[in-house]
Amino acid sequence: MFDNKDNRTELSELGEFGLIKHIASSVVLNNTANEKGIGDDAAVIDMAGHKTVVTTDMLVEGVHFDLTYVPLKHLGYKAVVVNLSDIYAMNATPTSLTVGLAVSNRFSLEAIEELYAGMLLACEKYGVDIIGGDTTTSPGGLSICITALGMAKAEDLTYRNGAKENDLICVTGDLGAAYLGLQILNREKQVFLENPKMQPDFEGHDYLLERQLKPEAGKKLIESLKKLGVKPTSMIDISDGLASELFHICEQSACGCRIYEDKIPIDIHAGLLADEFNLSSLTCALNGGEDYELLFTINPADYEKIKTIEDVSVIGHITRESSGLAMVDKGDGEIALRAQGWDSFRKNNL
Amino acid sequence: MFDNKDNRTELSELGEFGLIKHIASSVVLNNTANEKGIGDDAAVIDMAGHKTVVTTDMLVEGVHFDLTYVPLKHLGYKAVVVNLSDIYAMNATPTSLTVGLAVSNRFSLEAIEELYAGMLLACEKYGVDIIGGDTTTSPGGLSICITALGMAKAEDLTYRNGAKENDLICVTGDLGAAYLGLQILNREKQVFLENPKMQPDFEGHDYLLERQLKPEAGKKLIESLKKLGVKPTSMIDISDGLASELFHICEQSACGCRIYEDKIPIDIHAGLLADEFNLSSLTCALNGGEDYELLFTINPADYEKIKTIEDVSVIGHITRESSGLAMVDKGDGEIALRAQGWDSFRKNNL
Repeated sequence: MFDNKDNRTELSELGEFGLIKHIASSVVLNNTANEKGIGDDAAVIDMAGHKTVVTTDMLVEGVHFDLTYVPLKHLGYKAVVVNLSDIYAMNATPTSLTVGLAVSNRFSLEAIEELYAGMLLACEKYGVDIIGGDTTTSPGGLSICITALGMAKAEDLTYRNGAKENDLICVTGDLGAAYLGLQILNREKQVFLENPKMQPDFEGHDYLLERQLKPEAGKKLIESLKKLGVKPTSMIDISDGLASELFHICEQSACGCRIYEDKIPIDIHAGLLADEFNLSSLTCALNGGEDYELLFTINPADYEKIKTIEDVSVIGHITRESSGLAMVDKGDGEIALRAQGWDSFRKNNL
Repeated sequence: MFDNKDNRTELSELGEFGLIKHIASSVVLNNTANEKGIGDDAAVIDMAGHKTVVTTDMLVEGVHFDLTYVPLKHLGYKAVVVNLSDIYAMNATPTSLTVGLAVSNRFSLEAIEELYAGMLLACEKYGVDIIGGDTTTSPGGLSICITALGMAKAEDLTYRNGAKENDLICVTGDLGAAYLGLQILNREKQVFLENPKMQPDFEGHDYLLERQLKPEAGKKLIESLKKLGVKPTSMIDISDGLASELFHICEQSACGCRIYEDKIPIDIHAGLLADEFNLSSLTCALNGGEDYELLFTINPADYEKIKTIEDVSVIGHITRESSGLAMVDKGDGEIALRAQGWDSFRKNNL
């Protein structure tokens, strides 16, 4: 799919060191904090008195991505972005990545280059450096393990456990679109499997596909918050779905919440496509996941400032723990929230 | 193999969050530098003005380990140690790990507990904390991606590129034993495959097996060097074999080297077993790999100090680049060194 057979270099021709050199040659360090990157036993970072923030994500072929419809360049981009998203969710600035890759021999050098091209594109956009990693063969499939490092002043760090009663619950962007993008890709894959001559029908779904294939991380919000002098009381990124993330915040902050159905931001294309698939767009927003938007709580005194940030919706407020987690529907009824996000260990998700 | 069928908990019963909670409950933070571990979007470390040192290793079932003869607890231990080895090779002190795991459903919770028990044992021995990670399913096999972080004062950091002409080349411990341990395991596996009723014959090979299954990292050397006030001019850990690591140091330091066959430390059991396998123990030492000893160079003025460290052999010296890399054999002849270490991308290793 990603390979022109006339232009294929076997990884066994290069060997591990050859591959590392090849990769290293396209990796340039942009952060002065990254003093030493690829090429020694370890990388060296100078955090200059800041706190170091670290997160790891493991992505496995056949579990997290399907190469029949995900281009390797997009996969590389997304693999980086999902890690940066975790760093931003700490109100920190990402600086560095290490990349662990296990690749089977069905991948050529050109395929690995595509993957890296996507990773480097994300690195450039977010001002982050690849400082190290490990590349090895795998008996089957592709696994990617990325560890991202970032830095923050101690007083800026935002955890999941700081939400207080009456805090406002805010979310960036819109929700559910990435999940619906995945439904389109799955549908067209089925059509293709049944009739390989059929062309996939992606027309009019650019936004949803982009949300699934090329998500972005919360850099803009973090910069806006800094500019406005607002520090969220808690923050988390939405990888498993809004409901699941609200459970994390409420559990760690020992509180409950009320969110309002009519405040939940859902893109118009997502709404239309959900109808087409006989899905509830609300369920997609609550439990679909992979939005990589930021969910955060603020002191009500910061509301006037937050209002000025484009693309942030206030969707509810924090309550005392005993009142539980619930959504107020359009008819003013209350529906208890369930954390039903994506879980790779369970057989039936959503 | 590692599972008592009467006592098996399916990972799908726990789900991802259940598994994370279960793992987190056995992970205690010992380093005050690790302010926040598992349980938020990212971990937080305070390096207090020190440089942060980072390394990543990816271990894949069927490539790096064979669970028919590697107990999961040993695997966990080794997976941690090989990363710490890289941190020590920078003359730094490891503090923290993140663990990415991809596991197929043939692994139960009890199996993952065994793996973690080994990782935590290594963490305890080396005073390191697991501060985060990601655990997911895999369509087949087990992959482990560990990222280790450490710290060092700027002036203590030791790279591969600092070796100078006339520096002495030193190595800790002995070489080749881990490779020979692997040969025993492979032999007994073949015997078992041909006749499952045969008991494996490991008698008298405890040391070689331990070197393969439960290697240790260079903590003692780093502490000795600090105590003596010696800073190596270059350092690397021996994961791919002595010859391969010498090539890294000479390439990055733009120099050559002479090592002496009769100075290369080879354990007596390794010598005897090599004979039994019709292998050259010298070749095992040069190219076997997985020793996780430290190879380093020192200024000749530090020789008297280094002499006092038990378990360090001076095996040669650094020469100018034009004279190449060679070994002086027992008859005073010179043999050019070849970097022939283990490479997962090539079909025939050693």
